[in-house]
Amino acid sequence: MSDNDKTPEDTISDYESRLNDVLAEVEDPAVTDERASLELAGLEINRRDLMRTGVVAGAGAATGFAGSSLMTQSGHATSDDHFVEPGETDTYYGFWSGGHSGEVRVLGMPSMREIRRIPVFQRDGAVGYGHDEKTKQVLEEGGDMSSRHGLEWGDCHHPILSESGGDYDGKYLWINDKGGGRMARINLKYFETDAITDIPNMQACHGCSVQSPDTKYVYGVGEFREPVPNDGRNVDNPDKYWSTFTALNPESMDVEWQVRVSGNLDNADSGKNGRWAFATGYNKEAAFKVEGMTRDDRDYVKAFDVDAIESAIDSGNYRKVNGVKVLDGRKGSRLNSSGDPIVHYIPTPKSPHGCDVTPSGKYVTASGKLSPTVTIIDIEKIPKVDDPEDAIVGQPKVGQGPLHTTWDGRGHGYTTLFIDSKVTKWDIEEAVNAKKGSTKPVKGKVTVHYSPGHLQAAEAETTNPSGDWLVSLNKLSKDRFLPVGPIHPDNDQLIDISEDGTDKQGGMDLIADHPVHPEPHDCVIAHRDKINPKTTWEKSDYADEKPYVTPKDSEVNRTGDRSVHVKMSATRNQYGLRDFTVKEGDEVTITVTNIETTRDIIHGLAIPKHGINLAVAPQDTREVTFTADQPGVYWLYCTYFCSALHLEMRSRMIVEPRK
Amino acid sequence: MSDNDKTPEDTISDYESRLNDVLAEVEDPAVTDERASLELAGLEINRRDLMRTGVVAGAGAATGFAGSSLMTQSGHATSDDHFVEPGETDTYYGFWSGGHSGEVRVLGMPSMREIRRIPVFQRDGAVGYGHDEKTKQVLEEGGDMSSRHGLEWGDCHHPILSESGGDYDGKYLWINDKGGGRMARINLKYFETDAITDIPNMQACHGCSVQSPDTKYVYGVGEFREPVPNDGRNVDNPDKYWSTFTALNPESMDVEWQVRVSGNLDNADSGKNGRWAFATGYNKEAAFKVEGMTRDDRDYVKAFDVDAIESAIDSGNYRKVNGVKVLDGRKGSRLNSSGDPIVHYIPTPKSPHGCDVTPSGKYVTASGKLSPTVTIIDIEKIPKVDDPEDAIVGQPKVGQGPLHTTWDGRGHGYTTLFIDSKVTKWDIEEAVNAKKGSTKPVKGKVTVHYSPGHLQAAEAETTNPSGDWLVSLNKLSKDRFLPVGPIHPDNDQLIDISEDGTDKQGGMDLIADHPVHPEPHDCVIAHRDKINPKTTWEKSDYADEKPYVTPKDSEVNRTGDRSVHVKMSATRNQYGLRDFTVKEGDEVTITVTNIETTRDIIHGLAIPKHGINLAVAPQDTREVTFTADQPGVYWLYCTYFCSALHLEMRSRMIVEPRK
Repeated sequence: MSDNDKTPEDTISDYESRLNDVLAEVEDPAVTDERASLELAGLEINRRDLMRTGVVAGAGAATGFAGSSLMTQSGHATSDDHFVEPGETDTYYGFWSGGHSGEVRVLGMPSMREIRRIPVFQRDGAVGYGHDEKTKQVLEEGGDMSSRHGLEWGDCHHPILSESGGDYDGKYLWINDKGGGRMARINLKYFETDAITDIPNMQACHGCSVQSPDTKYVYGVGEFREPVPNDGRNVDNPDKYWSTFTALNPESMDVEWQVRVSGNLDNADSGKNGRWAFATGYNKEAAFKVEGMTRDDRDYVKAFDVDAIESAIDSGNYRKVNGVKVLDGRKGSRLNSSGDPIVHYIPTPKSPHGCDVTPSGKYVTASGKLSPTVTIIDIEKIPKVDDPEDAIVGQPKVGQGPLHTTWDGRGHGYTTLFIDSKVTKWDIEEAVNAKKGSTKPVKGKVTVHYSPGHLQAAEAETTNPSGDWLVSLNKLSKDRFLPVGPIHPDNDQLIDISEDGTDKQGGMDLIADHPVHPEPHDCVIAHRDKINPKTTWEKSDYADEKPYVTPKDSEVNRTGDRSVHVKMSATRNQYGLRDFTVKEGDEVTITVTNIETTRDIIHGLAIPKHGINLAVAPQDTREVTFTADQPGVYWLYCTYFCSALHLEMRSRMIVEPRK
Repeated sequence: MSDNDKTPEDTISDYESRLNDVLAEVEDPAVTDERASLELAGLEINRRDLMRTGVVAGAGAATGFAGSSLMTQSGHATSDDHFVEPGETDTYYGFWSGGHSGEVRVLGMPSMREIRRIPVFQRDGAVGYGHDEKTKQVLEEGGDMSSRHGLEWGDCHHPILSESGGDYDGKYLWINDKGGGRMARINLKYFETDAITDIPNMQACHGCSVQSPDTKYVYGVGEFREPVPNDGRNVDNPDKYWSTFTALNPESMDVEWQVRVSGNLDNADSGKNGRWAFATGYNKEAAFKVEGMTRDDRDYVKAFDVDAIESAIDSGNYRKVNGVKVLDGRKGSRLNSSGDPIVHYIPTPKSPHGCDVTPSGKYVTASGKLSPTVTIIDIEKIPKVDDPEDAIVGQPKVGQGPLHTTWDGRGHGYTTLFIDSKVTKWDIEEAVNAKKGSTKPVKGKVTVHYSPGHLQAAEAETTNPSGDWLVSLNKLSKDRFLPVGPIHPDNDQLIDISEDGTDKQGGMDLIADHPVHPEPHDCVIAHRDKINPKTTWEKSDYADEKPYVTPKDSEVNRTGDRSVHVKMSATRNQYGLRDFTVKEGDEVTITVTNIETTRDIIHGLAIPKHGINLAVAPQDTREVTFTADQPGVYWLYCTYFCSALHLEMRSRMIVEPRK
């Protein structure tokens, strides 16, 4: 039966039988088969309900599978470790992707409190993002669509921090847009999105990483294979479809080069010495439907040899496509000038998903997704071996549905098990020394609630992870929180990994549940000493770029028959102009400077009935241009509660009728 | 000197001298004058810094004024009371307004974890709000602007819950839009915004309340005086400016009637027997600038006699203005048929802000803002006294900058002090029996960080507040959290009020700080037993309104030369159509049903490069219409991580070129 002849029912049946094959290999079939088969049948179960009804009670007792109320506590961690006392600050910054909310979130850890939201691909009146001209321009630069909504939604997955010397340097954070093939940058001096690049030849930018130890490139991988040119012609020819690995310049945000690969790309990470970047992938079958995409038992980890790529670019072995230098890195089809491959394809079971380099930089791992294993690849071996599979040096069997792996700096990997709803802890070197498929390197498992995707430990992307806290980003929360309607929150769970216990949980302790607005995908956690934002703007940061309006400078200037420029200061508790007059149909530009110098004394400028709100922090200037198309009186007002007379902080805009 | 001749500098000077007059009355000038005068001078201070530098160390020791590290703990509350163990749920739902984020937030209490965001006046791709046709329509119904951005921003201040029998009934929550003069409703069965009304004759809808004990009306007050008609003519005639008190029908969301008042309106609350509604106000001077607005020492609490209003409406004593029945309730100018006023004006010092009815329904209180007092009005006396001031039965002096008051059900009021950065606790009946201006009814003060606006205790809007938890919504956070750039979060602080201590804090204990995205304004807290949302959609809820697409129903129908209707199901891990073809320029409608029945198995439908994301919960159907204006292949994909093969859950939309 060909791909195209299958009915949806055939696909479900295929999926079931394939996944059941995998499940047959599992150690605890009593529990996991029960759950997996129910899940396959669309009867996703609630573990605690099962415990209560006794369906898996015996199995639970036998295997250490337990609802939270029965959780074994190692005894070394309590809620107090998680609680940050009033007036004290958190130890870590956590940067969370906001998924299809199109934003990045900043959490304090270990308290898990959300301190800021940073809008990226979606307007947010709370901070005036997409309202004032500066941030509107950032959003618009990143849009390639005439449709207005094309500019105003994105799907953020993998936040990555800039590095210097292999450590977070607190300069930038990048975030992908899977919904639009874009990459955005947040300036960590001001915690504001300052650039968005629409990447050519890429429909869905998914995995991201930065070159390490020093960020000369930002890497984004194109997940969906897109026809090039994407003109709606010849759409059933697989050769017309491209997936590209892209390197951007971290400062200019321009695309430096792209590498076209075989199959789809998925997640990404970088080596520690600047030479290597990696991406997992699926659909080496180059199919258009899921049945074809998952047909084979192996797919590839792709190892990008950046030295070889740069050399090929220097040699001019690229083709310019839609303005970008593209190298052909398809399997077997492109060598650089010295004859070395620019991309190595390492076959890995089964649809390798998570791609994570160990802190030492010695190994890159691929979590098996449809295989219960993590594949460990020795990076130095990659260019040396004849058979790419010989670079695989370990393959521990960790559990069902392994998706992503993180590190504690003490030689352990922690892998999420989507199907088992667990985080499993395993020993890296033991796994390298053990037989492939061995479960012995596994040191313990902790149950999470439910179905984890990414996980991240503190400082885990550096060469020196902290080894104290880990967060499991769980896709389902079900009954963990007060019910809030059919759209449930996700559940981020905080796990203490500071001790290596000999209990079934390997010392891991589940500390706290935290509900989250859909759908955080991944996070990165940096020590507070490495992030040093400004707490007010400084005039020197932008003196050449934008004006500074004092009370004395506040005025209305007619700049044309149909245009007016209004300039005003803002300070407690008034604007530089208490009223001003424009004419119906005028294009009105308002420039407003917050002349306060004190931290946190922010002023807003809302224009009622015009859907505009500016957020102007101390010493900042913002500008907005709009058409005053309805005659009338509009009370511009301050939206940041600034003083006892905040309510009276207003300016009256009078729009006179034209005739 | 007239209002119009003053320079900004004059205004600052006036403001300082007026506020200093008030401050001269205060008990602890050593501390509060220091702080207030620094604040006036634009030098808002950090209390802990002052403590450290010794500026107020002595004063602090003398007055109980202390930074958090020196906080006196009553000893009965710890962080454990606040912490909700993994797997346990919170006791209360907290519904927070999101200020100029245009949303409502649902928190669990006492954990203070945000469980859901409910977008109201702003699109949110996370839950597809403003993306699918149904929610787009809700947003558009509430817009009166041709400008697209007029639809997509709002400023939410006061969330209010529907009541039956004087208790929260869990049916609806309403929220105002100050930025657009609108009122929105959230259906608490599905936690989704289901209606927005653009209120005529109102520029800024600010205070809100519901009729109690049974919600026959929803009240919204128009803060900014707006010319009627708002045509840009004759704008300096104060008589042309209206501020209106509006009653909406809770089911139809139509405006039932409006009452025009003197001065601006501010905050609102309702009596407990259905007859009375109240609003504070400012600017009885009918001025256009702050100097005029704050000239007089008294402004009014307005008491709306709903019985008298209904009788006047029945008698036809209204004027229809922009489609709405409007009664003239200006001071002294309108009587109902029996000669009774429909609005009573009770002069109150100085710019009365918070408006709060005691749980018993006996008193309405007005927090003085520029007066250090709370004014207590005996509601039954209002229609009986000749001199409205005789209805004032108490006026305790509570501290500097009193803004809002809430209740514990044990006879205490708790008032935020914006200038003092404290919450003060006072005894209601003691205040009624004491001399006006007495400080004796004050039972204690707790320092908050910093500058609190609203506060709310659990169940405080009912006749039976719980008396355990209180939240102070502080406008500034400054140094309380890791720095996150010039835009600081607000700080919601959780206070244990379960015991009446004799310490300086009156038994209040500050338990936890919680940072919040700008700018929550107010909240309402209901016991979990009173809110009963559905956790999946039910077909019966919408069978007549929208289709239900099964895998077999999935199909593409050309409905016209330029229009196509695509119908498909969604289930783990596929859509009903694996690909479909439309033509360039087609108006494409996609209808998608999530046929899962299991709670929390949500599917998304993202359309890359088109800025569209639908969120489809189990048994729900959503629809979107857009123009396929660019030929090409677009991989529609699932945005809610649903299964191990979530990544492969896609449908290929082929847009064929027209020629």
